[in-house]
Amino acid sequence: MTDRNIEVEPIDRPAVEDQEIEIVERKGLGHPDSICDGIAESVSQALANAYLDRVGKVLHYNTDETQLVAGRSNPQFGGGEMIEPIYLLIVGRATTQYGDQTIPTETIALEAARDYLDENFPELEFGTDIVVDVKMGEGSGDLKEVFGEDGVTVPMANDTSFGVGHAPLTETERIVLNAERRLNGEFAEEHPALGQDVKIMGKREGDAIDITVAAAMIDRYVEDRADYDDEVESVREFVRDVAHEYTDRDVSVYVNTADGDGTDEESVYLTTTGTSAEMGDDGSVGRGNRSNGLITPNRSMSMEATSGKNPVNHIGKIYNLLGTQIAESVVAEVDGIRDLRIRLLSQIGRPIDQPHVADAEIVTEEGVALSDIESDVVDIVDRELADVTSITERVIDGELTTF
Amino acid sequence: MTDRNIEVEPIDRPAVEDQEIEIVERKGLGHPDSICDGIAESVSQALANAYLDRVGKVLHYNTDETQLVAGRSNPQFGGGEMIEPIYLLIVGRATTQYGDQTIPTETIALEAARDYLDENFPELEFGTDIVVDVKMGEGSGDLKEVFGEDGVTVPMANDTSFGVGHAPLTETERIVLNAERRLNGEFAEEHPALGQDVKIMGKREGDAIDITVAAAMIDRYVEDRADYDDEVESVREFVRDVAHEYTDRDVSVYVNTADGDGTDEESVYLTTTGTSAEMGDDGSVGRGNRSNGLITPNRSMSMEATSGKNPVNHIGKIYNLLGTQIAESVVAEVDGIRDLRIRLLSQIGRPIDQPHVADAEIVTEEGVALSDIESDVVDIVDRELADVTSITERVIDGELTTF
Amino acid sequence: MTDRNIEVEPIDRPAVEDQEIEIVERKGLGHPDSICDGIAESVSQALANAYLDRVGKVLHYNTDETQLVAGRSNPQFGGGEMIEPIYLLIVGRATTQYGDQTIPTETIALEAARDYLDENFPELEFGTDIVVDVKMGEGSGDLKEVFGEDGVTVPMANDTSFGVGHAPLTETERIVLNAERRLNGEFAEEHPALGQDVKIMGKREGDAIDITVAAAMIDRYVEDRADYDDEVESVREFVRDVAHEYTDRDVSVYVNTADGDGTDEESVYLTTTGTSAEMGDDGSVGRGNRSNGLITPNRSMSMEATSGKNPVNHIGKIYNLLGTQIAESVVAEVDGIRDLRIRLLSQIGRPIDQPHVADAEIVTEEGVALSDIESDVVDIVDRELADVTSITERVIDGELTTF
Amino acid sequence: MTDRNIEVEPIDRPAVEDQEIEIVERKGLGHPDSICDGIAESVSQALANAYLDRVGKVLHYNTDETQLVAGRSNPQFGGGEMIEPIYLLIVGRATTQYGDQTIPTETIALEAARDYLDENFPELEFGTDIVVDVKMGEGSGDLKEVFGEDGVTVPMANDTSFGVGHAPLTETERIVLNAERRLNGEFAEEHPALGQDVKIMGKREGDAIDITVAAAMIDRYVEDRADYDDEVESVREFVRDVAHEYTDRDVSVYVNTADGDGTDEESVYLTTTGTSAEMGDDGSVGRGNRSNGLITPNRSMSMEATSGKNPVNHIGKIYNLLGTQIAESVVAEVDGIRDLRIRLLSQIGRPIDQPHVADAEIVTEEGVALSDIESDVVDIVDRELADVTSITERVIDGELTTF
Repeated sequence: MTDRNIEVEPIDRPAVEDQEIEIVERKGLGHPDSICDGIAESVSQALANAYLDRVGKVLHYNTDETQLVAGRSNPQFGGGEMIEPIYLLIVGRATTQYGDQTIPTETIALEAARDYLDENFPELEFGTDIVVDVKMGEGSGDLKEVFGEDGVTVPMANDTSFGVGHAPLTETERIVLNAERRLNGEFAEEHPALGQDVKIMGKREGDAIDITVAAAMIDRYVEDRADYDDEVESVREFVRDVAHEYTDRDVSVYVNTADGDGTDEESVYLTTTGTSAEMGDDGSVGRGNRSNGLITPNRSMSMEATSGKNPVNHIGKIYNLLGTQIAESVVAEVDGIRDLRIRLLSQIGRPIDQPHVADAEIVTEEGVALSDIESDVVDIVDRELADVTSITERVIDGELTTF
Repeated sequence: MTDRNIEVEPIDRPAVEDQEIEIVERKGLGHPDSICDGIAESVSQALANAYLDRVGKVLHYNTDETQLVAGRSNPQFGGGEMIEPIYLLIVGRATTQYGDQTIPTETIALEAARDYLDENFPELEFGTDIVVDVKMGEGSGDLKEVFGEDGVTVPMANDTSFGVGHAPLTETERIVLNAERRLNGEFAEEHPALGQDVKIMGKREGDAIDITVAAAMIDRYVEDRADYDDEVESVREFVRDVAHEYTDRDVSVYVNTADGDGTDEESVYLTTTGTSAEMGDDGSVGRGNRSNGLITPNRSMSMEATSGKNPVNHIGKIYNLLGTQIAESVVAEVDGIRDLRIRLLSQIGRPIDQPHVADAEIVTEEGVALSDIESDVVDIVDRELADVTSITERVIDGELTTF
Repeated sequence: MTDRNIEVEPIDRPAVEDQEIEIVERKGLGHPDSICDGIAESVSQALANAYLDRVGKVLHYNTDETQLVAGRSNPQFGGGEMIEPIYLLIVGRATTQYGDQTIPTETIALEAARDYLDENFPELEFGTDIVVDVKMGEGSGDLKEVFGEDGVTVPMANDTSFGVGHAPLTETERIVLNAERRLNGEFAEEHPALGQDVKIMGKREGDAIDITVAAAMIDRYVEDRADYDDEVESVREFVRDVAHEYTDRDVSVYVNTADGDGTDEESVYLTTTGTSAEMGDDGSVGRGNRSNGLITPNRSMSMEATSGKNPVNHIGKIYNLLGTQIAESVVAEVDGIRDLRIRLLSQIGRPIDQPHVADAEIVTEEGVALSDIESDVVDIVDRELADVTSITERVIDGELTTF
Repeated sequence: MTDRNIEVEPIDRPAVEDQEIEIVERKGLGHPDSICDGIAESVSQALANAYLDRVGKVLHYNTDETQLVAGRSNPQFGGGEMIEPIYLLIVGRATTQYGDQTIPTETIALEAARDYLDENFPELEFGTDIVVDVKMGEGSGDLKEVFGEDGVTVPMANDTSFGVGHAPLTETERIVLNAERRLNGEFAEEHPALGQDVKIMGKREGDAIDITVAAAMIDRYVEDRADYDDEVESVREFVRDVAHEYTDRDVSVYVNTADGDGTDEESVYLTTTGTSAEMGDDGSVGRGNRSNGLITPNRSMSMEATSGKNPVNHIGKIYNLLGTQIAESVVAEVDGIRDLRIRLLSQIGRPIDQPHVADAEIVTEEGVALSDIESDVVDIVDRELADVTSITERVIDGELTTF
């Protein structure tokens, strides 16, 4: 057994899957808040890797404050244009001086933002469609101490912080999450008209699931209203097919329901660059998806803005990502769990692999007693906690998503 | 009875007050995130009032995106100085042209920010200690329609949105909330050394409550380390006394636990202006307290950034504030409720006083059956929903806090 | 005699006073370029004094790059308003670290700008009508050496630079210079309607002088078009009276000639704050008046942006101010000079009181031979050169104007 | 003959070529002030062309206010890096709405800046080494009227403005101008180590010409100090050879005289991007070269910031360019002129081809009487004035340089 403070509890509420009403939302890759999350996390990865390359350890930084100010555009069937650029301000703290080395933190941040945008937003011209600026200061005195001296040591918690993870995802959650990812993946490869700004809302009442998609279309790939309607219909069919991979329930899919009847650009959800950031929607870090990629009012959520935080010692980031990973591991390895919530609470001054409490709240499947699985669960939680530093490594390597 | 879709449900989980571990946090008035919330909400109120004064109705706006970039300071016992200013960018959308009237939205925003800072942060010189800039665009086409044509009509929901409220507050919640408010109120009047940046974390395990306070001190009112220690002790005693007004449990109060042993400024939590924004802590809207003033991992929370949103038709803002108000009204008028959660879910295209569902989840006190109180609860929920527009009015009048 | 390289030369051209056509321009205190000059020079003085107070010598700085971006306003008879703020960016280099002292250069700059604006532009609300931001970096390596170790030592020239001064001013020059100063002085005290943005163009053809004044009026002090016309007429009369103090020639004065016939605000030169910076005129340092306060196409002018430069070792600044002072001294003390131009050319690596050449080009009055006055001129030039460091002191003390 | 007010005058002063001391300066392509000039003019051309393409005429704009804030770099032999980006703010006024067309002025400005930088500064990565932002407002009311309705009509002068041109260039002027252009042309093609920031000062005393070159080297093309010294020597030889194409006088060439003796990067003028803007030198429009490419204290100069001004009706810009062109034409077609200055003074309310006065001040060669050539000069001046609109066209087509 373990000396970690792991508690397993039953809970009498129905699993989220069995609740009468369920709501799930995902702001896709190109939503203004997600753009900020994505850039903040890219900047974080780039800084962590630069520190490792240059000084052999990750120095203090925190870059979880990107702000996006919407631009102004004039989308037109067949191809419109930007009128005023989007403005994006990267804000954060990072150590620039280490011994006699100067680490070019602002340049690293700008390059990371450029690379991220170029890779994910081919229609968005860096520097002209979107102006990216940076204000990166040093941290306050007591936060500037070097940390992560060595990849193996488990850091101490310096704050009371809290993380939460859930598994398994409900059908509605899986539909919402995967529909967006696959729209922005395989579908977009075949359909260049689809912009990255795809927002999906799932609502389940009993066994009826409504999936509402707001999908920005890119004007240069759409000739006219008829063409636009074809694209919308393709999205609808694709999402419906995706949905049926995850559920046998009734699924209704609605796409761009705010569209009007007209044949002009004003009536539809048309963009020049693929994101509503071009024409009136501001965004910032931590205001959209939680670290598991979803917004789930039916579940406990952490307020933590995970993207951009330093993954070496920011407990809130680590515990949210770890909570999700533990939940997924438990559900993958232990049968009979219908709903599982993992909560991790840090203890100031103790190593982060020894939380103040790690709490597994379980709804078992019918016929399964908690006692049958409790020790298996504890073992897995214990094992994953022991391996907490792998979270840090995987974040730095870009293997874990944060939004 | 009513035709509103009101559901009252029991729930088997223990009330938060009775759960084994409870965590509550409040970022005080001067926390960088709260500064942003406060300015965003002030700007929102100022715009709403300006629209009412000038055109008789509230036009479209949304100002929930203030970004603060920390400055740099050199605090010294007896009085230090700012070195680089804090930078604060007000971001948002607002209608500047209505008929032939031009509404000076950027000027209104800057004046609102100045007034808010001057009133709440006497040590922070507007324009030199903190540079406030503004980037206020027009909204996207479909959001620009005029709304709120007349104070009485209930607007239609234009989004699937969700709000949540809880009552009564637990002892720990009341301690955390009131300790911060009273520190920044009556205590600060007698103790000018106390800065506005007070962060309070409450943790209850069983019947033991730990209250941890991080309180920025203002250097010009603190002569030396001994003087500083006296101020810290005063805070501790004050918070302890406040706590005992709300609980009979054991309470331990910790203040500025990160302070070191030295006698110099580096060892302690000293500031020149009263907020950590002066020296390394960035901030933005919606990243701190929820609309009831607290961060409560034990309870469902909405991701909504309430501050700065338009209170006429932003359902997320209205439903979160209304949810709290309903919960408080129910608990005030109906006996026997140990824990109550109100959830409101909007129905696109229907008036916002007719939610898709209004759900009251109740933990009754021992000996009280849900059936005894159900109809009373429904009546109150119904009455409060019918009066939804009063939320808008009270927000515009500044009577409701949003963070 | 002296070993300074002083040359006195006659010149056959007519004195500017005797040329057929003469043009003179002055951008008044409130012109956007002058606002930038004034702030740049205020920041420079504030930094120099702060360095002297804190470390006993003036460290490297250069703040000659302020940029003003015009705002947007809606002037109305009786009182209008700003719609978008003016944006002003203070740019420069300054040393922030000296030994273990941190000099708050950005805060000093912002405070200097605020004080300058508050003193000179009572209608312009700092922070709301005009947003002032600052980007102050460190200098490049070789410019960062400390200088001015001691007030007495004459620094070495580190650049080939050039300064020029003229005396006496012509009648037209005196009219233009003094009309603006007295309008912004004694006249404005009696006439609050007059804004600071007064631009004066003088053109003399033979003995006919045209003085064209563009004078921004401040809306809250002007009730209607009739009132406006009265103010314009007062300006005209005042300038005419000033003019006749300096000349017996015919003088015609034109004020706000671009005004239309209408009775509305659009027809006239009305502002809310007293400067055209509020509504469409950008500005920057060094684009307006030369260091003697005038733009004089009939005379040699230096391209040097004097305002904001470091007065300890910036030769261009020192030599332009010194050139003017020498010219004025010579003319004040030596009779018979109708036109005098002093040119100073630095010699890299030699003390700045020993220029490569100091050249006095003289047009004598009729009946006066150059040989009669040459040695007096040389003596005065020599004396003033020897006292070059007093220029630095007087700049730091704010006794010399730079625009 | 003509009814234009053309005056030809002799002058008794020596030609600049014959004066004892002559000073000439040119800030090369990569000087921070020139970068601003170049971008401002590129933006102007792009806007003019966009207006012509879209609405058939050039609408009101003015973009002569670019501000550059230096970055921070760490140059290293073999290749260094930027640490903080250069920040460049494009400021100006431009008409965005014309009938129902929206002209994307800010996007056009950003694209023009990007194209200009990409073409001229291959080592300077747009968006990461240099952040380019834009603040482009509308003009003030009375300046917003449409102009240039038709390419042929000569616009009216709306201001008293003044232009000046000189010819022929002196030997020293030709050396300075051509040395910089050819260094940044043919030489740089063979020598990638040479940065664009080449500043040349020419000083002639009698028949001895000193040419002082400050040439930024690009670190990745320079292995070490020896390599650096070779490059410097190549520059010196190249400039010496260029000089001898223009003069038989004695020429001494000095390159990077501020270099120290050390072998490290600190001792020499090394950059990462080719411009001193990367490490401490700010810049702005109109602060460097006059419109003929030179700074010439021996000659009358206009204060006008030519770059970025609207070439359709900005008289200052047109008259300075036209003055130079007239002077060059006269000297090319008429023998016997040793020095010629053309001055053009506008007359408010009259077409700009009919200046208030066009004044040709001529120093003839020995043996040539002014009367011999006067009528030829007048004819050429008259012809060129009649063709004033071709200046506008050539500016829009990018055929005329402005700095």
